[in-house]
Amino acid sequence: MQIKVFLNEDEMPRQWYNLAADLPTPLPPPLGPDGKPVNPEMLAPVFPMNLIEQEVSQERWIDIPEEVLQLLYRWRPSPLHRAYALEKYLGTPAKIYFKNESVSPPGSHKPNTAVPQAWYNKQFGTKKLTTETGAGQWGSALSFAGALVGLEVKVYMVRISFDQKPFRKIMMETWGGKCVPSPSPYTEAGRKILEEMPDTPGSLGIAISEAIEEAVSDPSGKTKYALGSVLNHVMLHQTIIGLETKKQLEKIGENKVDVVIGCAGGGSNFAGLSFPFMYDKINGADIDIIPVEPASCPTMTRAPYKYDFGDVAKMTPMLPMHTLGHGFIPPPIHAGGLRYHGMAPLVSGAIKDGLATPRALHQLECYEAAVTFARTEGIIVAPETSHAVAAAIQEAKKAKEEGKEKVILFNLSGHGLMDLSGYEKYFAGELHDYALPEEELEKYQQEIADLPSVESVK
Amino acid sequence: MQIKVFLNEDEMPRQWYNLAADLPTPLPPPLGPDGKPVNPEMLAPVFPMNLIEQEVSQERWIDIPEEVLQLLYRWRPSPLHRAYALEKYLGTPAKIYFKNESVSPPGSHKPNTAVPQAWYNKQFGTKKLTTETGAGQWGSALSFAGALVGLEVKVYMVRISFDQKPFRKIMMETWGGKCVPSPSPYTEAGRKILEEMPDTPGSLGIAISEAIEEAVSDPSGKTKYALGSVLNHVMLHQTIIGLETKKQLEKIGENKVDVVIGCAGGGSNFAGLSFPFMYDKINGADIDIIPVEPASCPTMTRAPYKYDFGDVAKMTPMLPMHTLGHGFIPPPIHAGGLRYHGMAPLVSGAIKDGLATPRALHQLECYEAAVTFARTEGIIVAPETSHAVAAAIQEAKKAKEEGKEKVILFNLSGHGLMDLSGYEKYFAGELHDYALPEEELEKYQQEIADLPSVESVK
Repeated sequence: MQIKVFLNEDEMPRQWYNLAADLPTPLPPPLGPDGKPVNPEMLAPVFPMNLIEQEVSQERWIDIPEEVLQLLYRWRPSPLHRAYALEKYLGTPAKIYFKNESVSPPGSHKPNTAVPQAWYNKQFGTKKLTTETGAGQWGSALSFAGALVGLEVKVYMVRISFDQKPFRKIMMETWGGKCVPSPSPYTEAGRKILEEMPDTPGSLGIAISEAIEEAVSDPSGKTKYALGSVLNHVMLHQTIIGLETKKQLEKIGENKVDVVIGCAGGGSNFAGLSFPFMYDKINGADIDIIPVEPASCPTMTRAPYKYDFGDVAKMTPMLPMHTLGHGFIPPPIHAGGLRYHGMAPLVSGAIKDGLATPRALHQLECYEAAVTFARTEGIIVAPETSHAVAAAIQEAKKAKEEGKEKVILFNLSGHGLMDLSGYEKYFAGELHDYALPEEELEKYQQEIADLPSVESVK
Repeated sequence: MQIKVFLNEDEMPRQWYNLAADLPTPLPPPLGPDGKPVNPEMLAPVFPMNLIEQEVSQERWIDIPEEVLQLLYRWRPSPLHRAYALEKYLGTPAKIYFKNESVSPPGSHKPNTAVPQAWYNKQFGTKKLTTETGAGQWGSALSFAGALVGLEVKVYMVRISFDQKPFRKIMMETWGGKCVPSPSPYTEAGRKILEEMPDTPGSLGIAISEAIEEAVSDPSGKTKYALGSVLNHVMLHQTIIGLETKKQLEKIGENKVDVVIGCAGGGSNFAGLSFPFMYDKINGADIDIIPVEPASCPTMTRAPYKYDFGDVAKMTPMLPMHTLGHGFIPPPIHAGGLRYHGMAPLVSGAIKDGLATPRALHQLECYEAAVTFARTEGIIVAPETSHAVAAAIQEAKKAKEEGKEKVILFNLSGHGLMDLSGYEKYFAGELHDYALPEEELEKYQQEIADLPSVESVK
């Protein structure tokens, strides 16, 4: 039995796939504070123009520069695995495949975009990148990318994570990145918040504001900001995952996939695996495509598709997305990652167009699935990834009930070796399920009630 | 440029290589407490007979069972990388290759023997495996292996590591292993020590005694003990590393390797990469083969080759090996791993026969090399592995001085994501170099002065 499918470097795809070119309903544009569409020049203080061009591109295929390919070869192409042991354990007639993104040096799919973003910035003349990080996956990946291309990296890490996960900081420092707790004394936004709330645990919203402020306030223009999810060019870079997977499936003669699954916080790993399959779906293929989120942060399954800001301080443009409201604070009981309030516009648009059918799962089911997976397939997945594993198990059980030999594919977006505290709490019985109460949902929605609807712009 | 060389699963070697068949000076036998050679039956309470047969085998090639291959496919064959970025940084004419063992789910080379050991035990009828672990790499690997083949695993973890590294325990538990701090109340040896020294930090020697005691005192005989290094069958299983590497080098037309490097604590990852190249050396090839150890634990470079016990409590047979003395306590200032007092008999014999030339390095040079490696090649290596990286850099600099286009190969035995505290101390300037003082060396040697010399047995 063949367990894994490798590709050689010369078999790796040479172009990224841009779903924006094929989405049946064209994406509504980002809006400025005045409610008018943002033009590319307005983003120039924050991002380099070569990435802004990708952000607004309508081209279906975008060439991956040779130098970027060389950098991706450090760990790509990643293996595609057949989960025979899990199939046997479940007694399912389904075939379960997973794409293993945990083999990158930082341990997740995040470098797939961190590396090209760093490279395009370097080409553009950027000297320093700023960013924010919550659990630390993205800050680690960008520090790694900065080391590879030779860029300074400054990471604002949500203070409570910074204090609870000191090793994430060491990891970034080993790659030469600088990691500071947010709110910090280095920005106006940070100082203001520290003055008002000296003991605040921080938030992703505050950290984003600090990172953007540092970038835009460098008078030389040589400091730019980098985001690890949500934006179109991030989704674009991640499509290498799905494009490789299609080649790998072809190599073993697996011509038809029935179900494609990815966990979704901002949407990037889900998009990376699924968008190349959405291309097939748009062209008539019958595929169930399932982004999975936590029931405690039900962005796709219970929140509306409308305009909202990407951060608490409203420094970003407004984006069309499924959103819980930028004031959303994830419940502390939830240990499973995927806590962002919004969903990538391209993923949100795909849901609206019926290309993807989101699902929300409770964390106990996800951790149970992750432990089953560790004890059958041998890989300890990240808390985020456990949502994809749990949905794959649901689908495999359904196939068993129906007696169908379905082909199920999911994205193993990262390993959990740096995030074992969730497993610790799970084993200790300290975790509980929690569905966001309707009144909470309404409270956050009220705060964004005045923001434009998607229909009003089109 | 090709960065990595993959092998497909059907290209993986089908046999392990046993250096014992080719060592110019045959290995002296293990001795019992009476000073007489131990026969296989005497090991039967501790190990299953199928592994004992491998331990004493003189066959050059030993078949890897098909079911073991299937289990190894979960992460093998591992990639061979060309370190172009490091070469460029060093400005060396040398080509540097490394075998990347960090891609296994537990993150090191240890599963290469944990999995076959678990499988052979399962075949033999064993229900439960006991073992000890220091930093946690081996306990994690055996827990992983136990999950894959369906065996209970109990790990005695040195108490100070258990307390300082709670996540290693969670990792083992996620795979279904049970991890307890040693000394523990579960064994006579543990209870005795707890009574005498309730606050002891524990030691590998104590943990070994506890693990062996639990195995041999199971009246059903269904509990066996597993060791992660030192023994012949462990070295045997690890040769998959070097055998794969030779195929990978052949694939890219790299016909001659000049230098082969591995770090060495008990010797298993060094043996795994180098033994297949020693086969070539025995048959006339000109290769420098370098096992690297810390200057603070200079087993190979400063300690004699003689008989000694594997543990403090003298529960193991006496083995012929380079040994600092079983009473050796590693200096607390040393953060770099590789703290075992002895060296595998096969590695010790290879050194005696001039097949390998050991080198001792200081930890600051090793951490500096590891940081250079992280910032060029992108992989954060384990503290143990940093010794191999540092020696590879030394050799690459030497090649530069000599103007020679040498081919240097080293084993990247594991990643450091679970062991970042050493990096933290290095960045904080808290680490210092420390060479074991002569009087310390003599003190421990005095304790084993009465044990037999290797010559006395032959």
